[in-house]
Amino acid sequence: MPAAAPLRILLTGFEPFERDPVNPSWEVARALDGSSCDGATLHAVQLPCVFGPAIERLDEALVQWQPQLVLALGLAGGRSEVSLERVAINVIDARIADNAGQQPIDAPVIHGAPAAYFSTLPIKAIMRDLRAAGLPGAVSNTAGTFVCNQVFYALMHRLASEPAWSQTRGGFIHLPYLPEQAARLPGAPSMALATQVQALQVAMRTALSVRVDVRESAGQLH
Amino acid sequence: MPAAAPLRILLTGFEPFERDPVNPSWEVARALDGSSCDGATLHAVQLPCVFGPAIERLDEALVQWQPQLVLALGLAGGRSEVSLERVAINVIDARIADNAGQQPIDAPVIHGAPAAYFSTLPIKAIMRDLRAAGLPGAVSNTAGTFVCNQVFYALMHRLASEPAWSQTRGGFIHLPYLPEQAARLPGAPSMALATQVQALQVAMRTALSVRVDVRESAGQLH
Amino acid sequence: MPAAAPLRILLTGFEPFERDPVNPSWEVARALDGSSCDGATLHAVQLPCVFGPAIERLDEALVQWQPQLVLALGLAGGRSEVSLERVAINVIDARIADNAGQQPIDAPVIHGAPAAYFSTLPIKAIMRDLRAAGLPGAVSNTAGTFVCNQVFYALMHRLASEPAWSQTRGGFIHLPYLPEQAARLPGAPSMALATQVQALQVAMRTALSVRVDVRESAGQLH
Amino acid sequence: MPAAAPLRILLTGFEPFERDPVNPSWEVARALDGSSCDGATLHAVQLPCVFGPAIERLDEALVQWQPQLVLALGLAGGRSEVSLERVAINVIDARIADNAGQQPIDAPVIHGAPAAYFSTLPIKAIMRDLRAAGLPGAVSNTAGTFVCNQVFYALMHRLASEPAWSQTRGGFIHLPYLPEQAARLPGAPSMALATQVQALQVAMRTALSVRVDVRESAGQLH
Repeated sequence: MPAAAPLRILLTGFEPFERDPVNPSWEVARALDGSSCDGATLHAVQLPCVFGPAIERLDEALVQWQPQLVLALGLAGGRSEVSLERVAINVIDARIADNAGQQPIDAPVIHGAPAAYFSTLPIKAIMRDLRAAGLPGAVSNTAGTFVCNQVFYALMHRLASEPAWSQTRGGFIHLPYLPEQAARLPGAPSMALATQVQALQVAMRTALSVRVDVRESAGQLH
Repeated sequence: MPAAAPLRILLTGFEPFERDPVNPSWEVARALDGSSCDGATLHAVQLPCVFGPAIERLDEALVQWQPQLVLALGLAGGRSEVSLERVAINVIDARIADNAGQQPIDAPVIHGAPAAYFSTLPIKAIMRDLRAAGLPGAVSNTAGTFVCNQVFYALMHRLASEPAWSQTRGGFIHLPYLPEQAARLPGAPSMALATQVQALQVAMRTALSVRVDVRESAGQLH
Repeated sequence: MPAAAPLRILLTGFEPFERDPVNPSWEVARALDGSSCDGATLHAVQLPCVFGPAIERLDEALVQWQPQLVLALGLAGGRSEVSLERVAINVIDARIADNAGQQPIDAPVIHGAPAAYFSTLPIKAIMRDLRAAGLPGAVSNTAGTFVCNQVFYALMHRLASEPAWSQTRGGFIHLPYLPEQAARLPGAPSMALATQVQALQVAMRTALSVRVDVRESAGQLH
Repeated sequence: MPAAAPLRILLTGFEPFERDPVNPSWEVARALDGSSCDGATLHAVQLPCVFGPAIERLDEALVQWQPQLVLALGLAGGRSEVSLERVAINVIDARIADNAGQQPIDAPVIHGAPAAYFSTLPIKAIMRDLRAAGLPGAVSNTAGTFVCNQVFYALMHRLASEPAWSQTRGGFIHLPYLPEQAARLPGAPSMALATQVQALQVAMRTALSVRVDVRESAGQLH
């Protein structure tokens, strides 16, 4: 891809699920659609919360936008922070049914593919820059085993195995509930849409500028 | 007080404590200082996070502003929601030192006074209205045993025991961390300042309009 | 009561509720029934998990056993530790129905009675002795607003207002789930029955020997 | 290995770390050392909580005991349940220093090896059997990024890549604090040693008898 070509960032968000009227991952992606970040143009695409079709829609979007950077977003209800996912695993184990009523258990995302892929985003640098900007962010070591992890895994598998994507970096970011969701869920933490959008802007800027991630401790004892 | 007199609302917030540069309770009060709510004027006063002087400052503010409604605000770091405190207890048991280095243990707030006072705010109606507005709010059955509870108890004792305040309603509201605080505290929930300010506006409007609280379940099993 | 009279300790526990086949508060009380502690004999009584009848049964047991020490026990599902309750409040606000299907909201436990009573157990000394014995224990500032708090409040009201009980000390202790309960509730903390029983033995021994509670910080910021 | 050879189970536990005098993973392994389970003999080995030497000691134990089943145990302070780890990842990211003062960040466990390995224990069947026995157990999707994960990853790499171990199954189980540890950590959940030992006995029995894991939902949304 010639250096002069305009940079494109693909942001994916999910449609609502589990009877919720809204999903922050799509609200954030939609809010940023068409805007630009350090010379790159953002393209938001909504994925169905359905095993299979979610990946198909992701594949179409990759072909359509040929992005240099892909940030897949999802909701992590109950988490307080913007979660920078470290690893996608090759397993589906659905605790609830997806939006098409399927609930696969202990199936691989892709038969015969590796057990896991690591994010190629500079997650430590993003964590550092979020915190410096006063935005709560953390590295997470599990993206779960539902549709989010499936999309994350499929994305990383595409980027790792197809030469066309050898220059494209990608990863997955989990977002907290919006306040309007937490208002129906006593005790649940949330984050304002404006704060979430600001966090994504920081994440994209860092992802575009940092090629080699920093070494910053963000591990978990367990 | 003649009915024609302009209504005044006193909002108190605390100075920062425990090495934190900011305290959301003061940021919220300050943001609302001088504004009006349904015809009432808001007056914000900062309290020191010091046992004793906090109450003295509260007393001065009561005399100065002669409010019809008093909302004392404090930080509840680690809580996700706007907490409508139900009850103030007559005990001080400091887990950390206050800003003057004092750490009293198992002392009463006021010697010989009742064991507890209930808030005279319509906390159930406020909870209902916060949730209807998409803002996370909950009733809490403990305001702790630190300076927040001391101020809450002293306020309710004044309002209950002095005839001058027989028409004044009051209570205590605990607020979550701001995002910029949570950014330094991995895992901590937070709430944007704009969301917190909006919640206080709802709380004041409901407190001014609802005289007899609604019956809405907000109890805890323990 | 003559000093030579044998000491009696009343332990109350609740019947199961919310479709659970077991309640640790009764399992612990039952396990200790008839045993002795530093010369005192333990009498266990099961209370129904029903507003009203729970207090009636407590009153009968007080009259029957004329105890010098009363420990009322209850389940605090979700807590990790043995909770030494500091204060009982004069309010009922049921989040779920009791075992008779009643769900009162914002009713007083006793009309016209004080807002709250403090435990007369040496809760700080008990906390200290539990920890020294390697048993997880903590002071709690809320016993909730369900049947547990009702029994706690009614007990303290009896002990405080009736001369016959002027020498009797009492309080409430909340217990965690048993492992067999947590096995059906993913993520829930629990404590083995043997550990719970051991904790109660420590609590009773300390309650019998410590007349003036120690000053040990066990407060909460909120 | 001839079928008639006596079965051997290797249980590894860690020495204490982070200034704690005790580690439940070793207490459990030690309690079971030399006992037998369905005809198999248990051999307990203590691993140092040091990156590198922990694996060397594991390798020695594998050679010494030639086990058909390996359960590596570790402490997950703060978790309430026995955690059946699903996946080991090829990364070390130490939040604290190990017992030799090393704190590696973002290093692989084994250079050039796969991103992850899945446990070969029947974790769903073990979860089912634990719960049926009234013991709190759950599947976990992250074993962290500290020495526990390093040992888990190295174990699974050995079992997957060396023909000698083609018939040996293995995995990692995280254990909660013991009550005596939680007694020093207000709010922390714990589990009695007897309960933990009983859980391990169930886990081993199931691991020996179930060859093809059951399909039971134990996934996480995130």
